[in-house]
Amino acid sequence: MWTVKVVGLGVVALSLSLELFGRLLRRLRPAGRILNEVLFFPTEMACVEHIFTPSSPHSCFCSLPHGKETSLSRLLQRILSASFSLDLCVFAFSNINLRRAVLALHSRGVAIRVLTDKDYAAITGSQIGVLRKAGICVRCDVGSVYMHHKFAVVDGRLLITGSLNWTLTAVQGNMENILITEEPRLVQPFIKEFHRLWMRNDPARYQHSNDQKPAHVTTRTQCPVNHDKY
Amino acid sequence: MWTVKVVGLGVVALSLSLELFGRLLRRLRPAGRILNEVLFFPTEMACVEHIFTPSSPHSCFCSLPHGKETSLSRLLQRILSASFSLDLCVFAFSNINLRRAVLALHSRGVAIRVLTDKDYAAITGSQIGVLRKAGICVRCDVGSVYMHHKFAVVDGRLLITGSLNWTLTAVQGNMENILITEEPRLVQPFIKEFHRLWMRNDPARYQHSNDQKPAHVTTRTQCPVNHDKY
Repeated sequence: MWTVKVVGLGVVALSLSLELFGRLLRRLRPAGRILNEVLFFPTEMACVEHIFTPSSPHSCFCSLPHGKETSLSRLLQRILSASFSLDLCVFAFSNINLRRAVLALHSRGVAIRVLTDKDYAAITGSQIGVLRKAGICVRCDVGSVYMHHKFAVVDGRLLITGSLNWTLTAVQGNMENILITEEPRLVQPFIKEFHRLWMRNDPARYQHSNDQKPAHVTTRTQCPVNHDKY
Repeated sequence: MWTVKVVGLGVVALSLSLELFGRLLRRLRPAGRILNEVLFFPTEMACVEHIFTPSSPHSCFCSLPHGKETSLSRLLQRILSASFSLDLCVFAFSNINLRRAVLALHSRGVAIRVLTDKDYAAITGSQIGVLRKAGICVRCDVGSVYMHHKFAVVDGRLLITGSLNWTLTAVQGNMENILITEEPRLVQPFIKEFHRLWMRNDPARYQHSNDQKPAHVTTRTQCPVNHDKY
């Protein structure tokens, strides 16, 4: 009789141990699944048409290699993974493929905010004007020598940052890096910094004060009101 | 009698469970302790003398605020934490405090390798020449439009990367970021990339081939032989 009880107790102890192990693993496992990825540039030249038209991946007949995964294609995929928001803080933005990705998100209804450098927003080849014309809310930093960041936050959870400006030379010619992470201790400070810079460069600050608004600051009417919520 | 046995078995089961929990926690805990830190610039102006002379922290009487922790002081501390190696891959290097940190490590016997851009190594204010004169091994990238990285790997475990060039303007004037992490999935690709670029820009490749060595490539004799091991 006591043997049965002992075995029963053993089974209960084992079950409890397994249950506790399971709970512990479930609590600790998410850290291991956090996305951490590094891309290096210059990227190989390859067609990226299939990333923009995944429903018809063989629709492009350009002379570039097709179906090849490159650092640029990975970067585009990460940007296009946005479901509801993209906060972009970039010094120079002249790359056509990256512009196309941002416009594709905008046409899907993703809320986009772009913060850029006041001088580089107006250089030849800059795509900042195209974004503004499309109705995307753009602000230029007025408080520093250069607004030299090159980061983006996708859906408030994925950080894309590194040395890479969003230009053709950076993507195809330079030695560059992009670090992509979901690690909250890295993502959260960038979200906070974006918010701080966004608020600091709010054109309303100039409209509501006696300060003269610099010519390169986007007027508030160019920004949809709901963009200011993020 | 059987009660004693049951209790004894229970105690054994509990001890085993606790031991297993302990082992599991020891295996999983390091992930939570991994260093992840973000610094933003421009930094506040403050004296950093105490970082270089921690044994006499009150020895400086300059007019800057003392005892203040800033993004620059944090960055210097992270660099100076190197015990045996510093691999630095930086586009522009003209900051005197950062140069001082690198020279301090060199004088402590830390193995230092510096990879930089061929054009920016020679601009006015560049500290690359000072590092070379001190005997630090420097190589210039010859295979890209710009060697635009701005990262360092400390002791093969700590990655320091971001938008910040190692210049005075970047530290004191620009909006910049530095991301510091021990996450292996982020650190390892940078170690691999540094090794790849270091090997690719080995002056021996020019000495042992019929190719003419570009004037800006450091000769092999300027690099201590042991530096090439890392």
